[in-house]
Amino acid sequence: MKVGIETLRDVARRAIARQGFDEADTEIILEIIMYAQLRGNNQNVIKLLGPGMPANPEAGQIGIAKETKLSALLDGGWNQGMVVMSRACEIAIEKAKEHGFGIVGSRRTNSPTGAIGYYARWIADEGLLGFVFSGSPELMAVYGSYEAFLGTNPLALGIPTTGKPIVLDMATAAIAWYGIHLANAEGKSIPEGVAYDREGQFTTDPARALAGAIKAFGGFKGAALALIVEILTRPLVGATRNDDGSKSDWGNLIFAIDPELLADDLDSFQSAVSDLIHRVKASKRLPGVDEIPVPGERGDAHFERVTAAGEIEMDEKIWRELKAVASG
Amino acid sequence: MKVGIETLRDVARRAIARQGFDEADTEIILEIIMYAQLRGNNQNVIKLLGPGMPANPEAGQIGIAKETKLSALLDGGWNQGMVVMSRACEIAIEKAKEHGFGIVGSRRTNSPTGAIGYYARWIADEGLLGFVFSGSPELMAVYGSYEAFLGTNPLALGIPTTGKPIVLDMATAAIAWYGIHLANAEGKSIPEGVAYDREGQFTTDPARALAGAIKAFGGFKGAALALIVEILTRPLVGATRNDDGSKSDWGNLIFAIDPELLADDLDSFQSAVSDLIHRVKASKRLPGVDEIPVPGERGDAHFERVTAAGEIEMDEKIWRELKAVASG
Repeated sequence: MKVGIETLRDVARRAIARQGFDEADTEIILEIIMYAQLRGNNQNVIKLLGPGMPANPEAGQIGIAKETKLSALLDGGWNQGMVVMSRACEIAIEKAKEHGFGIVGSRRTNSPTGAIGYYARWIADEGLLGFVFSGSPELMAVYGSYEAFLGTNPLALGIPTTGKPIVLDMATAAIAWYGIHLANAEGKSIPEGVAYDREGQFTTDPARALAGAIKAFGGFKGAALALIVEILTRPLVGATRNDDGSKSDWGNLIFAIDPELLADDLDSFQSAVSDLIHRVKASKRLPGVDEIPVPGERGDAHFERVTAAGEIEMDEKIWRELKAVASG
Repeated sequence: MKVGIETLRDVARRAIARQGFDEADTEIILEIIMYAQLRGNNQNVIKLLGPGMPANPEAGQIGIAKETKLSALLDGGWNQGMVVMSRACEIAIEKAKEHGFGIVGSRRTNSPTGAIGYYARWIADEGLLGFVFSGSPELMAVYGSYEAFLGTNPLALGIPTTGKPIVLDMATAAIAWYGIHLANAEGKSIPEGVAYDREGQFTTDPARALAGAIKAFGGFKGAALALIVEILTRPLVGATRNDDGSKSDWGNLIFAIDPELLADDLDSFQSAVSDLIHRVKASKRLPGVDEIPVPGERGDAHFERVTAAGEIEMDEKIWRELKAVASG
């Protein structure tokens, strides 16, 4: 069914507030969830259904555990991940604009950080190169193992151009955890070879996969990148563990680099990137390929389509559940 | 056949000098080629055979086109890539040690940069996080295309631990160009699905692949990472093109981040990384897996084995050819 975007936004806002967030945090979370929703990304209002993402009653202030000219380490104080990441993003941008480089780590955040392309795009929109890494609980196996150990460890990269930025937002997992979760809810199977059951056999049954572990994408290389993201989002930011070794918090890392550290100026850099993309688009296409895709562009097209229409296609059950959450 | 490491080193040194390099450059190149050779990496003495890697007669001084506290842009002056990358690495380390972050780009370099894990390891050995990206000529297709456009665009990441650093050194290509080149020389076929012929059909014939294009690793995600490496090593560093649009130089990027920008101190960071790796190694193993692999470790083991033996297994033909190059 079709739902007006503004209607959806109002309902989503109320559904977020119902999770226990104050007005300021609700607006931050709303923007990031709507970003995903309007771009066809699955880190959308589904996050508010079922168990949802309730505010941690123990949340305090976001603190700064360490700061230098170029860096800050945030103690998330058990605030919601999107709220902490937004603060981190602001600080990284501010430092990079002043000094050419800004890096901000965070730990002790509560529940997910949403579509992390949002932060990479934000940084790129400010004329900077954005690098974003996000940790999560034990969901993915390291190479050679079938035990859930790594997070799904997404990374996002943002590059400014003369037009819309290039934004790569990817899990280092072969399948997103939400993909398995959704398949399970819908009684569907998952693709072959992307997840193990608890005994280390590949499974297409999402329930067995949820009890087992996700595989990394791209063989040893993808798994190695996933391990690097684990290091950048845990030991580097002082993320903590429980006595049994399990993760007791989520860690994240953002850094922003001013391209003018190397390029003549931002304009000439953006022009050179756009020129490169123009030539990428003109590459000889494989049979069946109508257009060479560039990271971020599919979401941009989706966004333009739905905002022009002013409404969005939604699953009726999801919409009904969202309204129920919003009404409390 | 077995060749003594010191004998090999002497012959390799003479073979490098024969390509037209002065004594200082020869020693730099020798170290990086021997690094690859002793670690079982294919960026080894094979590079000196056949067409080899002759010094560019037009090479001048390495210049600094732009410099800030945190950054330098090197004009390679058509010096050999390993020589320019070594200079870049030194500067990045120096700046990161002084300010917490150092970034050095280079352009107008001549021929390959060797096993780029060398630079990432060097940075990690200095207690810093190393990020290395290397551009190359038109060899790999963008996603959806079969035209050689991107370089094989390797990236290398180095992370200090309490022991040997973690070093990930990977092409974003599904197969290294050297792998195809070698298969062609040996009359072997290449794996299915890693390269296209000139008409856009997958081919296992290395000669057809050399006339066509390599595929990126890991589907859309791998190809997207390859595109990001292209941006970091070309528009960002002002790499240039000929009138017909083809690349007229090779570009590279290195950056180093001091973990103390975020972590309490280097020791505690290294301990936390080593602890993480210890737990990675203890993960439940898939059938047939004797040990969970960590990036860099296979090369370390190879290095220890051959240096303990004092000699290395070499193909007789390669050894004969290398000696011929060394004798001029």
